[in-house]
Amino acid sequence: MSYARELLDSYPRTVTVDASVLAAAIDAISDCAQACTADTDADLSEQDLAEMVKCIRLCLDCTDICTATGGVISRLAEYDPSTTRPLLEACVAICKSCGDECERHAHHEHCRICGQACRRCERACRELLDALK
Amino acid sequence: MSYARELLDSYPRTVTVDASVLAAAIDAISDCAQACTADTDADLSEQDLAEMVKCIRLCLDCTDICTATGGVISRLAEYDPSTTRPLLEACVAICKSCGDECERHAHHEHCRICGQACRRCERACRELLDALK
Amino acid sequence: MSYARELLDSYPRTVTVDASVLAAAIDAISDCAQACTADTDADLSEQDLAEMVKCIRLCLDCTDICTATGGVISRLAEYDPSTTRPLLEACVAICKSCGDECERHAHHEHCRICGQACRRCERACRELLDALK
Amino acid sequence: MSYARELLDSYPRTVTVDASVLAAAIDAISDCAQACTADTDADLSEQDLAEMVKCIRLCLDCTDICTATGGVISRLAEYDPSTTRPLLEACVAICKSCGDECERHAHHEHCRICGQACRRCERACRELLDALK
Repeated sequence: MSYARELLDSYPRTVTVDASVLAAAIDAISDCAQACTADTDADLSEQDLAEMVKCIRLCLDCTDICTATGGVISRLAEYDPSTTRPLLEACVAICKSCGDECERHAHHEHCRICGQACRRCERACRELLDALK
Repeated sequence: MSYARELLDSYPRTVTVDASVLAAAIDAISDCAQACTADTDADLSEQDLAEMVKCIRLCLDCTDICTATGGVISRLAEYDPSTTRPLLEACVAICKSCGDECERHAHHEHCRICGQACRRCERACRELLDALK
Repeated sequence: MSYARELLDSYPRTVTVDASVLAAAIDAISDCAQACTADTDADLSEQDLAEMVKCIRLCLDCTDICTATGGVISRLAEYDPSTTRPLLEACVAICKSCGDECERHAHHEHCRICGQACRRCERACRELLDALK
Repeated sequence: MSYARELLDSYPRTVTVDASVLAAAIDAISDCAQACTADTDADLSEQDLAEMVKCIRLCLDCTDICTATGGVISRLAEYDPSTTRPLLEACVAICKSCGDECERHAHHEHCRICGQACRRCERACRELLDALK
């Protein structure tokens, strides 16, 4: 069990969203933020650097948005849909764009792996959005 | 002139959005992120701590969202409305919620100042959203 | 295998540090950053809030420092000991302080879990410091 | 007067460090984090991209470390030298490395400006380290 899930199960207030969906989103976001940071750095070491610029930019955005989203959804008690929904939508959108771009470079193993992390994060954020309805 | 504006004026590609609107948003976001961090800490030192919990939570969310938004809008070249618009909407929403809550505690000078930073940031992000239409 | 490890194994340059030590540090840092964010929020919901203030402050510092350290050690190619060593030392120090404080509140299950995440992160960062010698 | 300074002057506890030195560090750190983000993106748009890789990596590290340091020094009440000193030392070191590298590319106006932000931040962090002695 991840720390995220253990911490949710020990939360002193009632958590109104399904804890397994929320923990899955927190874990996927955390992994995706790190994967995008590592992929940025790997991209910067590639021979075909000029081809990787869009991928680098999207990975940088993806790390920033995942980090913020992970923070906000880890603080549950004052859940405010007017903030959390567009933030999760932004996270879904950047994971989709970044995942698409990473897949275009899947001949680079690091992009292939990062693309998987983005897909998993996109899916987990969509599921959380559905669960918050 | 702020660094943000100077850097925009030296950008090697054409920036398609009004540079003064964009620089104002970047500066307001950066100030708001810091103000919310400082206000969180000041709140934690207050006698009426139990009254400040909602303010603390909103300030923490506001810092996280401002930090991500400031990063994303500082990277201009691959502007993607599907990501940037909901992110700016989330930033407007949290600045509004956080500004409202800070104003409720305006007898604490630090909350009054933080509320001003939130209002300015909310306005600057709305203006950027309009300029990006 | 974690994404961090998979990404290290796909890195286009030679990684001069032991990949298993580095991946363990990246994973422990990422978990610790999230655990501290979640613990902050859980602390804010406790009855004995006034007792939790120090824990909250240390957790906030710990998240910030872990996030930065995780970013820096995920970007390997320009490893600069003058930066990375004091940063890892700061990360070890905050994980120790935060872990000590969390253990003082181990009757709160969330503090007990967060304390474990801090201990694991402290140890993993020490091991990385040794490996970088 | 910056928000950082105004907030320090409204702090409910006594601040033991010189408020003008602390506020100057907070402001310089905040500007430097943003300048490095903007410079990274400008670098990615340059023709001589392969020459800019080291600059990009140092700017990414500099943003991460400045963001964490700005957070930690904005939370004053539990000042812990074992954490804050190495963190400030890491911030001084990355600002020096990043400023040196930016100056090597000062024919790019954005690097020249970013180098200035790094120098100012390095100086402000050194002054804070001295003031904390």
